[in-house]
Amino acid sequence: MVEQKATNVHWHSGEVTREDRYNVLGHKGATLWFTGLSGSGKSTVAVALEKELTARGKLCYRLDGDNIRLGINKNLGFSAEDRTENIRRIGEISKLFVDTGVIVLSSFISPYRADRDTVRALHDAGDMDFLEIHVDCALAEAEKRDPKGLYKKARAGEIKGFTGIDDPYEAPVKPEVHLHTDEMTLEQEVAILISELESRGILNFSI
Amino acid sequence: MVEQKATNVHWHSGEVTREDRYNVLGHKGATLWFTGLSGSGKSTVAVALEKELTARGKLCYRLDGDNIRLGINKNLGFSAEDRTENIRRIGEISKLFVDTGVIVLSSFISPYRADRDTVRALHDAGDMDFLEIHVDCALAEAEKRDPKGLYKKARAGEIKGFTGIDDPYEAPVKPEVHLHTDEMTLEQEVAILISELESRGILNFSI
Repeated sequence: MVEQKATNVHWHSGEVTREDRYNVLGHKGATLWFTGLSGSGKSTVAVALEKELTARGKLCYRLDGDNIRLGINKNLGFSAEDRTENIRRIGEISKLFVDTGVIVLSSFISPYRADRDTVRALHDAGDMDFLEIHVDCALAEAEKRDPKGLYKKARAGEIKGFTGIDDPYEAPVKPEVHLHTDEMTLEQEVAILISELESRGILNFSI
Repeated sequence: MVEQKATNVHWHSGEVTREDRYNVLGHKGATLWFTGLSGSGKSTVAVALEKELTARGKLCYRLDGDNIRLGINKNLGFSAEDRTENIRRIGEISKLFVDTGVIVLSSFISPYRADRDTVRALHDAGDMDFLEIHVDCALAEAEKRDPKGLYKKARAGEIKGFTGIDDPYEAPVKPEVHLHTDEMTLEQEVAILISELESRGILNFSI
């Protein structure tokens, strides 16, 4: 049986390239990096975009606290050093996905500009698309939403070093996309992102 | 323009599932874990399988020292603790890929049974296919091939703790696939692996 199967096996010299993988998928890989305050709507828009892309037959994957903090980064805490290592690892994982052809939706507060710039530089070095998406929402509005009750705890002093309360959020200086979630509908946000991906030629690829 | 685009945006309640991603690809994700001595032929068969799968329109990705040791794991050395952390992280990354629908070809000596069993357990916990591939080759033959000149250096004492020389290789007890690269052709090896993937229903999926 092995002999028979072998007659169907053909491969060419040279290794499979990134373009070969993009060709299998019919689109390019890219990292969309959603950054913003807790409660700003990062996950909401990432989930909505994921649904829209999947419905269009594009392969995307969300990286967030659920699958990162409980998995590969479960040996990291919240010290400054660990936060930086957390973001670095997510950046490296995102690169592997982009190299594969996946549209990565990374959704993390990622409050420090230097950390986000590190991830951007990693992508630039690999000639990969990196889109910083500022999920912008007034602190007062995010605190009013407080979906996880975290602002309340931070105000009560039960959580220390909470972004926006007693730790800074360093807003992107020149994000590829700037969403104002306290002024836009979710439909508008998704449409802006799809349009951005289209205009960059990410959603279609063939050799 | 945003308004106009928005009319094309439709999504459903509920999140995108693993099955939705497999459906986009038309196949399932799985981890093929190639383990064996240095020079046993792990990369050779992984590269050949990658070519065959890509030619068949399947999305696969190789994880190896090049893209792992120089990227996410560049802050790890070769102490026992670091070797274990190296394999743990690769296992977690493999899981993220399998969840996405990618056929992962992980090619590492991974000499310790406990480390490989950890990766297997991670996959089992996530209800994911994990195939341990023993890339088996007599030490004498691997040492004769010595493609990187490492055995020579190990015999000369220039490299310490080299697997097979002064550090043990713990062979898999019950691997899903056992390749004897000193007795089989590359075509046979690839055919066996394709057959194994087919018989497990990994190469075709639709909702």
